[in-house]
Amino acid sequence: MAEELEHVKCLIIGSGPAGYTAAIYAARADLKPVMITGMQMGGQLTSTTDVENFPGYPGGVMGPEMMEDFRKQAERFGTDIRFGYVSSVDFSGPVHKVVVDENKTILADTVIVSTGASAKWLGLPSEEKYNGFGVSACAVCDGFFFKNQEVVIVGAGDTAAEEATYLAKLCTKVTMLVRRDEFRASKAMVHRVLNTPNIEILYNTETKEIIGNGQTVTAVKVYNNLTKEEQEIPATGFFVAIGHKPNTDIFKDWLKMDEVGYIITHPDSTATDIEGVFVCGDAQDKIYRQAVTAAGTGCMAALEAERYLAAKEYQE
Amino acid sequence: MAEELEHVKCLIIGSGPAGYTAAIYAARADLKPVMITGMQMGGQLTSTTDVENFPGYPGGVMGPEMMEDFRKQAERFGTDIRFGYVSSVDFSGPVHKVVVDENKTILADTVIVSTGASAKWLGLPSEEKYNGFGVSACAVCDGFFFKNQEVVIVGAGDTAAEEATYLAKLCTKVTMLVRRDEFRASKAMVHRVLNTPNIEILYNTETKEIIGNGQTVTAVKVYNNLTKEEQEIPATGFFVAIGHKPNTDIFKDWLKMDEVGYIITHPDSTATDIEGVFVCGDAQDKIYRQAVTAAGTGCMAALEAERYLAAKEYQE
Repeated sequence: MAEELEHVKCLIIGSGPAGYTAAIYAARADLKPVMITGMQMGGQLTSTTDVENFPGYPGGVMGPEMMEDFRKQAERFGTDIRFGYVSSVDFSGPVHKVVVDENKTILADTVIVSTGASAKWLGLPSEEKYNGFGVSACAVCDGFFFKNQEVVIVGAGDTAAEEATYLAKLCTKVTMLVRRDEFRASKAMVHRVLNTPNIEILYNTETKEIIGNGQTVTAVKVYNNLTKEEQEIPATGFFVAIGHKPNTDIFKDWLKMDEVGYIITHPDSTATDIEGVFVCGDAQDKIYRQAVTAAGTGCMAALEAERYLAAKEYQE
Repeated sequence: MAEELEHVKCLIIGSGPAGYTAAIYAARADLKPVMITGMQMGGQLTSTTDVENFPGYPGGVMGPEMMEDFRKQAERFGTDIRFGYVSSVDFSGPVHKVVVDENKTILADTVIVSTGASAKWLGLPSEEKYNGFGVSACAVCDGFFFKNQEVVIVGAGDTAAEEATYLAKLCTKVTMLVRRDEFRASKAMVHRVLNTPNIEILYNTETKEIIGNGQTVTAVKVYNNLTKEEQEIPATGFFVAIGHKPNTDIFKDWLKMDEVGYIITHPDSTATDIEGVFVCGDAQDKIYRQAVTAAGTGCMAALEAERYLAAKEYQE
């Protein structure tokens, strides 16, 4: 019994700045795009506080609010936005097969991959044990629960610095664990951290264990990686801000990737070796990883998809 | 008599989406950027009507208003914005020399080129004669002067289609000259033109001469390039919307370019063969040429400039 499968011109996987911008352009080009949002609708920016560097928001904007703007704009031009996740893909034929929510197959002439990246964890058993009970990778989502309490954050990059200052507004004290003897963050962000009185920075310091009472976090055991000296820092919250991994596992049988999982696209393009499959945003960008660069590549992907389809139509 | 020259870390040439986004990122990275705006402050978007495809403006925005937002955001983080133009550059040494307004030399550790592109003209003597007296390359700047009058527009791309519909709101009739038997514009834009009742499209039609009374335009003489048949179209305005040329002449002794003048950058980067010189926006992009792609590359340029300076500092 043959089932009639849905067949779309353009399927967008992911709903961050890259995906929404691709949707805006694809919809305006009359490709009638269908977007599968992924489980974190709006992507990483929905767990971000103030966004001050996306051009067009002179006074800054909250990450979730910005993604609402993007979503509205994509919908205004007719993007069919569906909440769900892509469980597998099959790029073996001229028409691409995308399985949504493990059970529904959609056929697509073009696929725009904008699945972004996800937060990394330290990998400690105690971190997993208390995840959601004091351990978090998202200061903005969860910081409020630690109001007027003491927290620890681990990380040395821009996101860690941004999240530390965010937490410092809510919490009485923020202890920041930096593994090396310096930050990786930009000067502007380091400056901000150093000038926040209730942030204490411990350099050359790593996490040994998150200590709890069986229900919630009560302290963090850390050690200096030069002196091996240990100490327990009282804290009810433990925030991990050590980087990200591209969400590209479902594509690994089909698309070329680097060792971390970033998809490799053609130079100055979002095209891949598979015709009709384009990749934009953090799924393919390990260098810039900004909302505005993701948006730029989202636009590129939609224009490349449109031109690919127009050329194909002309051939047929 | 040695004069003390101003020496800056980061000089940005041009003030379109690429330049302003570079400025936002460079300023936040504490590079204390100086921007030389060029003579058209805000760039090409200041001569554009509704911008509906820049993510973050769900209801659309006018081009000039959007560039005001960008400017404010760049200024908020401390960009030193100066009205003027770069008359020449010297990229022969480790520190770059940039001459502003023919008479002031600024030394710069990094230069971000975001000079954009400029409108093309047909090259007819009568077009030059009546330029500013009925002939224009900017419907949004000049359309108002032709309110309740009849105009002609030449071009077949997205910009031509957009400008034709803009003019149609102001003018009683818009005649659109398309050289081939079809548009180059996107389906969405063509759809809009075809559904605007007071736009008449003449396919396979080119301009022979702009006719005037010595002071202003009164008609346009056109011919069908298949039948060679001529006709005179009564019109007080003649709008040229046939494409653009990158504003890169001052760099031709220093930076690699293609035959049109688009600067060639390293793959997936804004870097050039000259250390510390980065190129973003339409000056290097002949494929996508959108505000959001320009903004993306502006961000890239600033991040690359920051990383170049940080690496250099570390070496010294």
